[in-house]
Amino acid sequence: MENRILLLLLTLIPGIGPARIKAITGYLNDLSDVLLADVHELMKVPGIGEPLARQIHNFLHHTEKRQESERAVLEQMAKLQSCGGHMVTMLDPDYPPLLREIYDPPPCLFVRGKLPQTEIPGLAIVGTRQASQYGKECTALLCRELVKSGFAIFSGLAFGIDMAAHTATLEQGGVTVAVLASGVDSIYTDPQGKLWPKIIERGAIISEEWIGSELTPGKFPKRNRLISGITLGTIVVESDLKGGALITAANALEQNREVFAVPGNIFSRTSQGTNRLIQQGQAKAVMHGDDILYELGSRFIKKAATKPATVGTPPSIRLTPEEQTVMRGLGDSPIHIDALAALTAIDVSTLLVHLFELELKAAIEQQPGQFFRKKGL
Amino acid sequence: MENRILLLLLTLIPGIGPARIKAITGYLNDLSDVLLADVHELMKVPGIGEPLARQIHNFLHHTEKRQESERAVLEQMAKLQSCGGHMVTMLDPDYPPLLREIYDPPPCLFVRGKLPQTEIPGLAIVGTRQASQYGKECTALLCRELVKSGFAIFSGLAFGIDMAAHTATLEQGGVTVAVLASGVDSIYTDPQGKLWPKIIERGAIISEEWIGSELTPGKFPKRNRLISGITLGTIVVESDLKGGALITAANALEQNREVFAVPGNIFSRTSQGTNRLIQQGQAKAVMHGDDILYELGSRFIKKAATKPATVGTPPSIRLTPEEQTVMRGLGDSPIHIDALAALTAIDVSTLLVHLFELELKAAIEQQPGQFFRKKGL
Repeated sequence: MENRILLLLLTLIPGIGPARIKAITGYLNDLSDVLLADVHELMKVPGIGEPLARQIHNFLHHTEKRQESERAVLEQMAKLQSCGGHMVTMLDPDYPPLLREIYDPPPCLFVRGKLPQTEIPGLAIVGTRQASQYGKECTALLCRELVKSGFAIFSGLAFGIDMAAHTATLEQGGVTVAVLASGVDSIYTDPQGKLWPKIIERGAIISEEWIGSELTPGKFPKRNRLISGITLGTIVVESDLKGGALITAANALEQNREVFAVPGNIFSRTSQGTNRLIQQGQAKAVMHGDDILYELGSRFIKKAATKPATVGTPPSIRLTPEEQTVMRGLGDSPIHIDALAALTAIDVSTLLVHLFELELKAAIEQQPGQFFRKKGL
Repeated sequence: MENRILLLLLTLIPGIGPARIKAITGYLNDLSDVLLADVHELMKVPGIGEPLARQIHNFLHHTEKRQESERAVLEQMAKLQSCGGHMVTMLDPDYPPLLREIYDPPPCLFVRGKLPQTEIPGLAIVGTRQASQYGKECTALLCRELVKSGFAIFSGLAFGIDMAAHTATLEQGGVTVAVLASGVDSIYTDPQGKLWPKIIERGAIISEEWIGSELTPGKFPKRNRLISGITLGTIVVESDLKGGALITAANALEQNREVFAVPGNIFSRTSQGTNRLIQQGQAKAVMHGDDILYELGSRFIKKAATKPATVGTPPSIRLTPEEQTVMRGLGDSPIHIDALAALTAIDVSTLLVHLFELELKAAIEQQPGQFFRKKGL
């Protein structure tokens, strides 16, 4: 049996969730070994005790149950194909690498469109459904700046900030991904298809939920862990004191990802949650896209794409006056950042931001030990 | 010679500033001993080397110089009296205790009106001269809540946020103090006397500068250290990326005082400085007066007055519904805060805020070990 089918089959075993499937796939050399394993062997998987090991063994060797489940899996794959989708499973190399790191990564993502290449850094932009004009303007500003810096923008395709984030990213020619709480066939916030066909064209609509599965309230917080988990950081643009965006922020903190929030008017209901996140030190205040680059720092450099995550148009190198100053300080031989700071009279922290940008623009390359040089042609 | 006159005399010696006068008064049992000290003795004062010791000795024993300076001091005192003012020097018990703690407390404050009693906690509210409507509304909100909580409000009588803070405090029946960069006779921002006579009536106008002295740009940052130094904390309501309010905030940090800032719209120029302060962790975000009570915590409880710092009307105990809930959990016997939290179903941090308020309203009393009881009648 194909391993991806076997993986989906495992998800149908009662008591087995994403965290345990991660444990099983991590323990076995090859997932197909699970079919050969006896109860004793299964109990060696961390987090799996005797009752669960028996349950897995019974399920896989109870012909009727298993056949029924296999039919369900194949049916699901057919449905997915019929709406133009495909699966990306944790067994695949193109599974999102950051999502793989979380405690409970979904074994399988159902994808319509195309996930961004794994080296393109992603950020989540989320917020209240009751977005104010201010929130929408902030969203547009951040998307504009972040797309320029090469980020793909993830959100939840909800009304309000989420929709604004997808829309603004598309307007900037950027890549955007909508992570749904429903199956990828059911886009209840956009039944007319004003937005989602463009998202599929330039990015993807993804979900861990099966096509045709019922949308229950519990699936929203479950989905939120994916929005935070698939990205380097989550930006909450506007939020009430309660709301899904705060759950996404809490997930991001648990997943050891960055959380950002946009400060706002203290009399505005939709800035109460964001101001509170900042006040309590759970989120860093963000006024510009640069604030995010600065915070992500070296973490970002490692994951960063070498060109903007835009579609269609090849990246042309346009440098700001400051970047030009930095470029004049660089040559074919590597120079240390401290020397470059002295040469350009730009302080190291500011310089770091410009160097990020230049690296994104593929104008320079970094070498070990904080040495930088012009990129060879 | 009267010690206060001697103190003013010392301030006229070139090379002797507030920090050195603090060292001298701290070293001597009685300031008049300075007249008996020889150069060798003066050199024992920390921070005073031989050249300065000689200079002090020469000045005090050079009859002509000294007599000329004495005349200037007496003239200054006459001028002060003629505008209805008085002096409060660091030798006096009613010198503001927090100001006494800073590195360079002014030896003498010239006061018109009456300084708040030393046990009344003070907060500074400062901000840009180009205040927006939002900034004025925030100022009014905070003054309203902080006056209720028993704080005196200090500011700089500049246009914009400063004026709004004095005005709002007066409207709430609170005590406000204007700290000037000019002498107390010269109130250049309010020549018509629309505001300052009320400030004097209900608080004070103070300065360390001599009456008739020239107002130079350097006196504003010098004055700002007093605004931060005389208070428990400084609240920046609105500020550009540069401006005097940020200097006051920097002073407050150096003086180990709290700094607060009100977050605002990221597109508003006058919130750029405050958002930045918050972003960089230099200020705590403030959305309500309670946020300040919470941050000041036990430090505040120690310094707090047992009644609101209002003038004229005796404090009547008005309790919020939450405070009434807390009161119902309290009896004549002390109860521990954890037990009270369980009893009232209010979490401890929220409870602490209510308990502060109730203590301020003299409705309850705290006993060692976080026990609370109703106040005995």
